[in-house]
Amino acid sequence: MAAQKRIGILTSGGDCAGLNAAIRAVVHHAIGTYGWEVIGIQEATHGLMHRPPKSTRLDIEGIDQLLLQGGTILGTTNKGNPFAFPMAGGTFQDRSAEIIAGYHELKLDALVGIGGDGSLAILRRIANQGNLNLVAIPKTIDNDVGATELSIGFDTATNIATEALDRLHFTAASHSRVMVLEVMGRDAGHIALSAGIAGGADIILIPEIPYNLDNVAEKIRQRQAQGKKFCLVMVSEAVRTELGDQVTQISQQGEDRYGGIGKYIAEQIATRTGAESRVTVLGHIQRGGIPSPADRLLGTVFGVAAVNLIAEEKYDHMVAWKNREVVSVPIAEAIKTYRNVDLHGTLIKTARGMGICLGDDY
Amino acid sequence: MAAQKRIGILTSGGDCAGLNAAIRAVVHHAIGTYGWEVIGIQEATHGLMHRPPKSTRLDIEGIDQLLLQGGTILGTTNKGNPFAFPMAGGTFQDRSAEIIAGYHELKLDALVGIGGDGSLAILRRIANQGNLNLVAIPKTIDNDVGATELSIGFDTATNIATEALDRLHFTAASHSRVMVLEVMGRDAGHIALSAGIAGGADIILIPEIPYNLDNVAEKIRQRQAQGKKFCLVMVSEAVRTELGDQVTQISQQGEDRYGGIGKYIAEQIATRTGAESRVTVLGHIQRGGIPSPADRLLGTVFGVAAVNLIAEEKYDHMVAWKNREVVSVPIAEAIKTYRNVDLHGTLIKTARGMGICLGDDY
Amino acid sequence: MAAQKRIGILTSGGDCAGLNAAIRAVVHHAIGTYGWEVIGIQEATHGLMHRPPKSTRLDIEGIDQLLLQGGTILGTTNKGNPFAFPMAGGTFQDRSAEIIAGYHELKLDALVGIGGDGSLAILRRIANQGNLNLVAIPKTIDNDVGATELSIGFDTATNIATEALDRLHFTAASHSRVMVLEVMGRDAGHIALSAGIAGGADIILIPEIPYNLDNVAEKIRQRQAQGKKFCLVMVSEAVRTELGDQVTQISQQGEDRYGGIGKYIAEQIATRTGAESRVTVLGHIQRGGIPSPADRLLGTVFGVAAVNLIAEEKYDHMVAWKNREVVSVPIAEAIKTYRNVDLHGTLIKTARGMGICLGDDY
Amino acid sequence: MAAQKRIGILTSGGDCAGLNAAIRAVVHHAIGTYGWEVIGIQEATHGLMHRPPKSTRLDIEGIDQLLLQGGTILGTTNKGNPFAFPMAGGTFQDRSAEIIAGYHELKLDALVGIGGDGSLAILRRIANQGNLNLVAIPKTIDNDVGATELSIGFDTATNIATEALDRLHFTAASHSRVMVLEVMGRDAGHIALSAGIAGGADIILIPEIPYNLDNVAEKIRQRQAQGKKFCLVMVSEAVRTELGDQVTQISQQGEDRYGGIGKYIAEQIATRTGAESRVTVLGHIQRGGIPSPADRLLGTVFGVAAVNLIAEEKYDHMVAWKNREVVSVPIAEAIKTYRNVDLHGTLIKTARGMGICLGDDY
Repeated sequence: MAAQKRIGILTSGGDCAGLNAAIRAVVHHAIGTYGWEVIGIQEATHGLMHRPPKSTRLDIEGIDQLLLQGGTILGTTNKGNPFAFPMAGGTFQDRSAEIIAGYHELKLDALVGIGGDGSLAILRRIANQGNLNLVAIPKTIDNDVGATELSIGFDTATNIATEALDRLHFTAASHSRVMVLEVMGRDAGHIALSAGIAGGADIILIPEIPYNLDNVAEKIRQRQAQGKKFCLVMVSEAVRTELGDQVTQISQQGEDRYGGIGKYIAEQIATRTGAESRVTVLGHIQRGGIPSPADRLLGTVFGVAAVNLIAEEKYDHMVAWKNREVVSVPIAEAIKTYRNVDLHGTLIKTARGMGICLGDDY
Repeated sequence: MAAQKRIGILTSGGDCAGLNAAIRAVVHHAIGTYGWEVIGIQEATHGLMHRPPKSTRLDIEGIDQLLLQGGTILGTTNKGNPFAFPMAGGTFQDRSAEIIAGYHELKLDALVGIGGDGSLAILRRIANQGNLNLVAIPKTIDNDVGATELSIGFDTATNIATEALDRLHFTAASHSRVMVLEVMGRDAGHIALSAGIAGGADIILIPEIPYNLDNVAEKIRQRQAQGKKFCLVMVSEAVRTELGDQVTQISQQGEDRYGGIGKYIAEQIATRTGAESRVTVLGHIQRGGIPSPADRLLGTVFGVAAVNLIAEEKYDHMVAWKNREVVSVPIAEAIKTYRNVDLHGTLIKTARGMGICLGDDY
Repeated sequence: MAAQKRIGILTSGGDCAGLNAAIRAVVHHAIGTYGWEVIGIQEATHGLMHRPPKSTRLDIEGIDQLLLQGGTILGTTNKGNPFAFPMAGGTFQDRSAEIIAGYHELKLDALVGIGGDGSLAILRRIANQGNLNLVAIPKTIDNDVGATELSIGFDTATNIATEALDRLHFTAASHSRVMVLEVMGRDAGHIALSAGIAGGADIILIPEIPYNLDNVAEKIRQRQAQGKKFCLVMVSEAVRTELGDQVTQISQQGEDRYGGIGKYIAEQIATRTGAESRVTVLGHIQRGGIPSPADRLLGTVFGVAAVNLIAEEKYDHMVAWKNREVVSVPIAEAIKTYRNVDLHGTLIKTARGMGICLGDDY
Repeated sequence: MAAQKRIGILTSGGDCAGLNAAIRAVVHHAIGTYGWEVIGIQEATHGLMHRPPKSTRLDIEGIDQLLLQGGTILGTTNKGNPFAFPMAGGTFQDRSAEIIAGYHELKLDALVGIGGDGSLAILRRIANQGNLNLVAIPKTIDNDVGATELSIGFDTATNIATEALDRLHFTAASHSRVMVLEVMGRDAGHIALSAGIAGGADIILIPEIPYNLDNVAEKIRQRQAQGKKFCLVMVSEAVRTELGDQVTQISQQGEDRYGGIGKYIAEQIATRTGAESRVTVLGHIQRGGIPSPADRLLGTVFGVAAVNLIAEEKYDHMVAWKNREVVSVPIAEAIKTYRNVDLHGTLIKTARGMGICLGDDY
């Protein structure tokens, strides 16, 4: 039996489905198996800046209904990078010391940090600076954390994007329209590619493959020539033209960026092909939602494994999913290896095999 | 047994879930019970303008999988009012005679027209002019056809809007945000009101009640004062301010109108309350979707009843749902009685009882 | 503003989806609008027999997540009729006085009882005996409470039964099998009939229409003759043969009865037609489930209306749904008018119009 | 470009979700990319025994709606092993030569066989005997084909089992009952284990771990002692007691086996703990269902890859999923390595970490 511990847990970055399953598993395993204490920290590192830290003791009683609940009961924020935190008056301040102090004020022996690659990089820098005992759990609907095959939230987001495409399929076919669906994916096109194939898209545009509107228009004309009057186009929010300039108006402020590119492409299609086109921006609906069984399973697996890392005092590591087993990797390695869509990988080959246009000259 | 007949069927106006159930029922009952012929007319009245008319013979074999299929297998268009049809060169032409000719060219004894109040008014005018035998089935996600408690498509659209609100609920709570969801409802707020109550919205704005942003902001501040950091706002696409001017930029071109009002309200909320706000426009996703059991049941009931009206040669009537039974009403009456949300009805009282802000000074 | 009150609420009989929406609405409206106190009574009348009564004070904070939660947070039991309650030693005892004493011990001014016709009859008898102020909300997946078009739980149960039929449809078609689905419906066949039509059943057997296996077998042979190799059969748990004897082995112990009839019919079909047949008993899955938007809306409407009845001191009444509005009816009248499937009603006519075999000689 | 070919495709063994996605992908890639012909063979090898073979030419037009359709449009049967096929009169006959003749009669250059390990072993034996060009795609809801991380159908079946557990959770909690859910898994407990963890089961019994009812009863008593009045028990259909005798009454006739073990365990629990218990047998509902996005994606990936194997004339191989990429393995190897639940693997450790009772003395 591992020594008695008092551990903290926080969720950082954008919310997604399956976070609560991970929180539930950490609480269950830490308390039920090891008899430790678990402190839930609210609003990510922001909760540790606060005096006293915003936190609540978690127990097994309170977590029974969590599996079906999307988002995170701990809350999260994106108020800014703690090393350059925006203050009143437009200045920026390094507030990492306050976070470290919060960790000590809560008398934590270790911290479970759940986040994407950006959040985990920041958490690791803070932990290194303060000698905090950190273990990490990867979450991101974009599934772009390279050291793990799967991150929490990707499966549910892909399901929601596929279902949206299914719905647009019916109305596109009824009205003989080109339907453009814009989904999340700031740097990687995993959601667009997976959901696009699963939902039968005719055209899929992802950030990894600069698109040429001539190819897009040509695909639509080909379908028209075959008597197929409608077309489904899946677009990642951050796709780029072949010319290399980024069409998307990505705002500096993070998530305000949803808008723009899908509309632009729908209009260009209408202009170039004469087809009636419409755009739908899926937006925040992708984050929420009742977690899929796969995300609940992954969250539970990761939560138990993270507690085991703490029991072994194997800090500075992240849990990861590989070949249907959980493993651990140094956080340093995990945040170094960003995963884009592999342009020579199975899904790209599958898309091309299905005759899906990826926007390039292939 | 009714006399042998050859009947046509068309779907007009925007597509929705449950149309195929109605088509399936018409085919099953007309052929299986009466031994008639059924001709599916493509692309609404536009298919009848064409020479030869765009049509296909429907049989029972081909309709087995239709219950689960959204949209309409017959297709639909909104290319314009047949009495003032937009022609090349920017002119308009009365093409009703071509539609009447198409009906006769197909040697139809009767026509089942499925549409909303606008489409049914046009169909009736054509039928009257040409002495065509028309029976009607009401469909509209807005549920604003007054002569029937329910129209095909409303239940599924409300389910989708509620599910979207459920998803936003999770992410709103995680990020302490105000989430604005803009749903369809050009003149009536039934979707927003039903889905808003079912999904636990804090604020619901509908076209029937001009809103005042001061009331909206006050509700959000009240919640903030109670420690509730997030807020769910459901908005019909065509809401109006108290001042009477319509903020929505409703385009002349039909469905391009989706955009604008939800974003405007989200921005105003942020400005007035300091809350972080986001908007999601549900758009065309509301139309598509696998039909709900209730829409499949209603479509089947209406399809059987419409065939029975033809068997009785009770033309110029629309099937309607009243008190859990199907009835028939003169189309003339049906298109006269538009149904808005009843401001003294149960749902408004329920919303107020739940403390939901409706944007007025109540 | 109504006088200050302290009201109790309990859920009685089998659980279903939407009960928590009603509880949430009662709490919201009673506390938020009127400033009353709400006491949740656990395990139906059994909680009032206990000393002290099993109860908990409900407040608005605790009910935020209730809309998506199936079942009832108050719990329910079917330990027996309080007027003849089974005691140790196999005797029965009238324990109604204890329930009345529990009501007074909790210092209640009124009680909201949520139940089906059986539960409401018992609650009313207790209320009359003790001069308690009772208002009632109807719930039953069977939808057999006559005074209301809809009761809480029916829509979700019908959705689940339809979805099960959809799933069996695919596997039936793949394997050329007859698939029998047995659903709940102790006295009324509403679930089987609605879900059967919505899900495309070929044969629907309900308690209201004694079935003859010759007709069932004939329908299957007809389909075989038309080259249709599979068949979907929907069966209510309590169907009867034409001979009048009840084949179902309904146990004395309440819900143990699920089993028997579906299997019997599947075997008889195999014997008589040579078809490969399988049975699925849907069972308790029908009760649970995330409440449908319609059940959440109905639960909310009923909860608000029940509180209004108390504010008006209009006791001994039940809220009911009629023609898309909430009304109230004397409980005495509500429990008197049981609603079976109307043999001359729309759904039966629709089923016959679709060529669905109902087991009779029609 | 590969040489012109005429390929056959058949689905063998029990149906599942995602088969049609694989068929659609084979058709799309073979015709759209390579310009081949594709012949759909009906009812598995049985269709090839028939004279003429039961088959239909497949083209791209006919497969548009297949992604959402469960089961297999080609049909399947389990009429018996072709090498010992049950004939009239109770005798058995080797009919493999007829199948080989059918392949030649259809002038096939290659055959895509979709099946589980049993079906694939038989197909390979036939292919070897007749020098047929076979490539294989693994499907099985049990996910027990060892050479691939995932087989078609597992994800959807797990989703359905998890959803059933979610539904039982609500009603179990409302009634303070022990709910036993019996799911498929003839030899491997993957569905029960994955769905049990994802759905929050308290007890999971799988074929790989012989159970002891004393441990099961003890777990329930522990929960009762902690005031937890309900319990969720997930049971694979083929679990065994510690004593080694198989309690399940597995019938010789294949799928009639669903029944028995869940009921037995529910009764034993009631007897040993005094708890009120109920059983639900999920049955055929697990096979059907609208395919999950993951099964649609996997089916599409496998279909494209199988066609590529034929283009490379890499016969006698099966496509497989490994580390998020598609690979190929010799069929001989694939059918040799059966995959049970790894008793030292991640999911078992996760279950134990969550305090889930697995029926053993651990």
